[in-house]
Order: sequence, then structure tokens, then C-alpha cells
Amino acid sequence: MSVKNLRAEVISIGDEMTSGARLDTNAQWLSRRLGELGIEVEFHTTVGDTLQHNIDVFRIAARRADVVVATGGLGPTRDDLTRQAIAAAAEVPLEFRASALEHIEKLFSKRNREMPERNKIQAMFPVGSEQVFNPQGTAPGIDLEIISPDHRCRVFALPGVPAEMVRMFDDTVAPRLLSMTGGQANHIEHHVMKFFGIGESDMEQRLGEMIARDRTPRVGITVSAATISLRITAIDSSRQACLDQIESTRHEILSRVGELHFGDGEEFEQFHAVDRQLRERGESLVTAEFGRAALLGDWFASLGETPGYRGGVSFADIDALTELLLAGQDQPLETLRERFKASWLLAVDGYPSLEGTSDAPLPAAEVDLIVIDPSGKRSVTTSRIGGHPSIIQARIAKAALAWLRHVLNEQTDSAIS
Amino acid sequence: MSVKNLRAEVISIGDEMTSGARLDTNAQWLSRRLGELGIEVEFHTTVGDTLQHNIDVFRIAARRADVVVATGGLGPTRDDLTRQAIAAAAEVPLEFRASALEHIEKLFSKRNREMPERNKIQAMFPVGSEQVFNPQGTAPGIDLEIISPDHRCRVFALPGVPAEMVRMFDDTVAPRLLSMTGGQANHIEHHVMKFFGIGESDMEQRLGEMIARDRTPRVGITVSAATISLRITAIDSSRQACLDQIESTRHEILSRVGELHFGDGEEFEQFHAVDRQLRERGESLVTAEFGRAALLGDWFASLGETPGYRGGVSFADIDALTELLLAGQDQPLETLRERFKASWLLAVDGYPSLEGTSDAPLPAAEVDLIVIDPSGKRSVTTSRIGGHPSIIQARIAKAALAWLRHVLNEQTDSAIS
Repeated sequence: MSVKNLRAEVISIGDEMTSGARLDTNAQWLSRRLGELGIEVEFHTTVGDTLQHNIDVFRIAARRADVVVATGGLGPTRDDLTRQAIAAAAEVPLEFRASALEHIEKLFSKRNREMPERNKIQAMFPVGSEQVFNPQGTAPGIDLEIISPDHRCRVFALPGVPAEMVRMFDDTVAPRLLSMTGGQANHIEHHVMKFFGIGESDMEQRLGEMIARDRTPRVGITVSAATISLRITAIDSSRQACLDQIESTRHEILSRVGELHFGDGEEFEQFHAVDRQLRERGESLVTAEFGRAALLGDWFASLGETPGYRGGVSFADIDALTELLLAGQDQPLETLRERFKASWLLAVDGYPSLEGTSDAPLPAAEVDLIVIDPSGKRSVTTSRIGGHPSIIQARIAKAALAWLRHVLNEQTDSAIS
Repeated sequence: MSVKNLRAEVISIGDEMTSGARLDTNAQWLSRRLGELGIEVEFHTTVGDTLQHNIDVFRIAARRADVVVATGGLGPTRDDLTRQAIAAAAEVPLEFRASALEHIEKLFSKRNREMPERNKIQAMFPVGSEQVFNPQGTAPGIDLEIISPDHRCRVFALPGVPAEMVRMFDDTVAPRLLSMTGGQANHIEHHVMKFFGIGESDMEQRLGEMIARDRTPRVGITVSAATISLRITAIDSSRQACLDQIESTRHEILSRVGELHFGDGEEFEQFHAVDRQLRERGESLVTAEFGRAALLGDWFASLGETPGYRGGVSFADIDALTELLLAGQDQPLETLRERFKASWLLAVDGYPSLEGTSDAPLPAAEVDLIVIDPSGKRSVTTSRIGGHPSIIQARIAKAALAWLRHVLNEQTDSAIS
């Protein structure tokens, strides 16, 4: 059996999700991760904290899937019924595991707290199951095969806390899934590349066969508020072999869409790229935002006391800046840059009003993106930017960053040439 | 059968969700809404665009639920298989409905486009089903009972587009669910009240029996980034009777936690309350934010050219403001208020760094919240604010708004007394 032919189901457990009190994000993360490993997820099921419902859900999943990854219901309270449910679905009893209890007791003593009696339940495991080590919390995970006359299903039960679940999946579940094939390729490495300035379908077209499901290594594409992430997942017999795969694929991607690439890493955004570039040049930035949003100020502020960012202002329009803050100045943006003692100024003029808009995409509106460089020279571009109301302001702020990066790079290029 | 005893399942259809490319938010919204009607959701199921999987999922749901609400798979393409799947699960054929085709053709001619041949499929309905009118799109919904020897299940299939789904549920599905009981109470009204300054469990304690599941009208509680919403759902025989229920419950809630209430409406936030209050007083505001975020500037900017908001600045710290923008001023915040010609100034000093923090809640940090009133008088409070890294900056900005509201109200009270 190859990993590529495994069919998976993701199960999320908890009344807080079936009632709608909490949005389930674990199922999305796990589906993406399983897909990156080449395992197709066919179903998600969410079930509340009712034992019989949980048993039924695991029975159904064990019939139709080869792999089940469940999250939630492993805590110490009476609501937490996952270990009982999968034991019942597999028709095996629970047994006590001293090694698991030791880990739990250690965690409590590290925190100078006594372990409540009820936490002992977390050391109970279905007979025949393996533990999934949880380095960050008291709830160990469970790895159990549910065997019926004509089918075997491997069930992994993980805690619902996202940070614990993510770590346990990557450290333990993913390697075990790979070893199910009996092959040598049981190392996995992920690498994320970030792009701005292209739509998803154009990106897919330019990547062509690179995003085919059966490519090695696999390249996945996701979009968030107009930023595109390409996710390279390499599976091979050693870490170095994975890194080599990633490096050559990364190189090929850059040769196709390199001009839109601004950095690497899940959390890396364009404002990080700008900040890094300014630091390298020993230069700094002030932002001025006009209209109905002020996102750049918040993004750059989150970087902290970087020498690259001097601060930001936001106003209804440029007239308000001229009139209120710098009375008598006929070059308000130039004056602002000087007053802030910043090398560069980036202005957005301006974010549109979203008042009275429905849930439908907005038609493109003209927005001026203004860069003033250290010599006082202005570079202005007028962008036509539309999109869904929930992302249009972010798209405008990102277009402004792309414009600043463009001007910065032109300066660098002309300095080199 | 009373609405309160109906058991529901929510089904989401589409490869983009099972693959993790898109986060499903429809299931959460529907679960909350069904809960508000007194109908408990026991399961969510997500399935890709595979016909046999869809048929299986509807068959399982029809056995274990009284009501199924499904979203997605009603479009005109070959991937859209929901109508075929529920017809197969109910073991009835599809038939053509001229009235549905008319609606679709009208929508296309309104947009001056010719209807593609493939859209005709959207006028096909399972025999015995009713239509669910879609005022905003071409895909009508389907309302079909799946009957087995010992059980009947009412299935509603709606489009996956959230705006269309929401409207169709509220306009058509909810009243039909109520009429299933055969009672007279088939009007529904929702009302949302907003609160800040209390934790969820404290709120629950102060509301006591008011949030019991069997109360009339029902009061639900949800939390988003430290803002609490109380959702009143009244079900009665007329709109007026619903509004009367809401009014008396709203009054009782205010008598218990009125001092924390800042406004009503799903989208109403504290900055709207501040803006409204300033407009009523003919006054205005400037914001100054220090440290690692600048949320107030973005929030107030979104209000547009309100006379109540003059603009905002953000800096690494107050020294940077003093040094850079207003050299020589020993009262930088007072000077800022004057330069901006604003009646009030609200400052946050400062948002903490989140660098190197894990996914765990942060310990409480001290933050100064500073208000300067139209006479130049300062009111400062030092708040200790902690929480999860993803919400701590929003919680700080909201605490600042609560402090400004407090000072504004004190002024109003003393002016009256």
C-alpha cells in the first residue's frame, strides 16, 4: 500500500463545535497536512461530547477510511470521552500505562502543582494501542488500529489544543503514516514560499505541471488575502535528501515566478521583507494612510523597535494632514518624512469606504500609492484594486508594500549597474 | 414534536473544504442559528465532490437526524452533485421545474447575459421536494423529506455562498422548521447585545438562569476577542409578540449587567459607540498608539469621514513622538491633541511585544490608558492585561475604548447632576 492511496477522515470532537460556539480550524490544518503527505482526506466529521455518538462516528470512519485523525476529548474531565469511544469502536478494553502517568505527574510537579486525581484517566489506553508523545501537555495521544474482517483502519487521537496537536502530528503521526508503506522514505520537510502580485489561477498556469498531485516533491498552493503561499513537501530517506529536493524545486519555482517572490516562511509577510531590506541599507520608513483603513501602521508597529520603522499617521485625507498637523506646508508628505527623520515615506491615498457594501466583490477603485525616497524624489503609481470587502483594504496595503519594494529594488539595481 | 426535540446535522459539501484549501464557516453559523431556534446540532459532516460519498453521507444523516441543513454543490457545473445525491438518498428521480428556470433566466437577463445551457440543471428538483427561493443567486435551494420505514428526516440543501445561504435560511428554512411543530409560534426575531469588561464565565454567573436552554426567549452567549455578545432569539405567533419578548428580556439583562453594555447589533463595536457619543456632543478624537500595534487608528479610520475622528499616530514610544514630531514639547500628548484640533485624545502606552511568544496565553502586562479631555485634563488608568497572543492587542485597544467611554460618561453624569 502506498501513502498516495490511503484515504483519510478527520474527526473533531466537542460540544463547543457542534453548537457553533467555536470555529474548528484543526480539521483544515490536518487536511492540508495530510494532503501534503499525499493522503487524500475524503470526510470531516464533527461530533459533540456524547459517548454513543462518538462510538458511532468512529465505527463509520473505521469502515470508510484507512487513516483517521481525531482531535479533542482527551482531557481529564467527564466530558472527555475519546479514549473510551475508540476502545469501544475497536472492541478492546482500556488498560493502565505507568509510563504515561509518570509523564503527567512530572508535568504537574514541574509546575509545582499536585496532580488532581481525575488526571489519572489520561494514563488509560485501549489494549493494543501505542502512545503518541505530547511534549507540551498532559494529554498523550492514542494510536490504535481498528480491525474488521475485511478492513483495517489506523486511528490517531490527538488533543484539541492546536499547538499540541500540530507538534504531535509533525513529530509522531506523520512519520508513522509514512512507515505504514514499509518504504525507506520516512523523513518529511516542509518549506513555504510567499508571493504577491498575481491571482491564484494565473499562478497555477505559470507553474503548470509543477503543482500536479503526483509530483516529487509535492507543491501545494494556498491564498490568504491576496498573498499566495507555495508549500513544498519533500518526503525522502534522509533529512538532507528532503532539503535537496526542496532546494531544486525552489530554484525551479523562482525561475518561473521569481519576480513575484518576496520571502520564505509561513509567517513571513511583505512588511517583514521591507523591514529587512531597510535595515540592510541602514534606512528607515514612515507610513501615511488616508481613507477608511490604516493597516500599514499596525503591521509595522508589530515589528517592534526596529530602526527601520519610525512611525505612522492616518487621516481621512491629505487635506486633513496639511490643515491639521503641518499648517502652511504645501508638500505635506515631504514635510512628514522630514519631521519623522525617515529615509523613506510610503503613503496610501486612499482606502475606499466599505459602507453599504454587500458581501459581493467590489469593483476596482483607483488608489494612489506614493513612495518618497531619501533624496525626496516621488514615485507614484495608481492601482486599480477590487475584491471582496473583507480583504480589499489588506490587498491595497499589500499593493503599497509591493510598490515600495519595487522602488527599493530599482534603486538597488541602479546602484549596482 | 416540539422544535426543542429536533436533532440536527449540518453537512458541508466541496473538495475545497475536505482538502483544507478553504475554512468552512457555514457549519458554525448554521449550528449557532439552529441552536438559537432550540434545535440541537449533533453532527457536522464535510464531504468532497464525489457522488457516492455524498449519497452515503445523506443516508447516514437521514437515519440519525430529524433535520439536515446542507450547503454547497448546487451550482451549474459537473462538480455540483447535491441535487443528484439527495434524490438518490431519498430514492426519487429528478424532475424539471419551469418556475425555477424562469427565475434563473430572469437573473441572467437582468445582468444582460445569456444563460449558459449548463445552468438548466439548476431547475431540476427531486420529485416531492419544495424549492427554497434564492433572491440573490441562480441556485434555488431544495427542501425534501427522506422517509424510511421508521424515521423521517427533513433535508434542506442551500448554496455554499455565505450571503445567499444566510438569507435563505432566515427567510425560508427557519419558518419552515417552526411550522414542523404545527404550533402557532412561527415568527422569529433575533437581537444581539454587546458587552466589554467581563469574562465569559463571570457573565454566565451573573446571568444565571437567564441562559438556560429552555428559557423563553432564549439567550445565547458568544465571545470574540474579549467582546461578549448576548443573542436573544424570540419565537412567537407574531412579529410584535417576538419584539415584546426581546424588549422585556433586554431590560432584565440590562438590570443585571447594564454597566458593561455598550451597544446593540451584530457588527456594533465599542469604537462605533465612542463615535456616536462624540457626534452627539459635537466633539472629536485623535488617537496615539505606542508599542507593537496600532489597532485604534485602523478601527476609527474605517468609520470614514466622521467629524468625530480627526486622525491617529503610532510610534515605538512616547519619546519618539516627542523627539521626532514635536521637538521641544514637554507635553507631547497635549500638544498632539491641540495640533489635531481634537476635543479628546486617547493614547495606549503601549502594546507589548509578542516576539518569541508561543501559542500559550501571555501573563498580564501593565498598559497605561490615557485620556485627555477638552479642557486638557488627563485621566490615566493602568490596566493589567493578559491573554492569548492572537487577541491580546485587540483586548488592550478595547480596554482603552472602555476607559474613554468611562471618562466620557462620568463627564455626562456630572454635567447632568
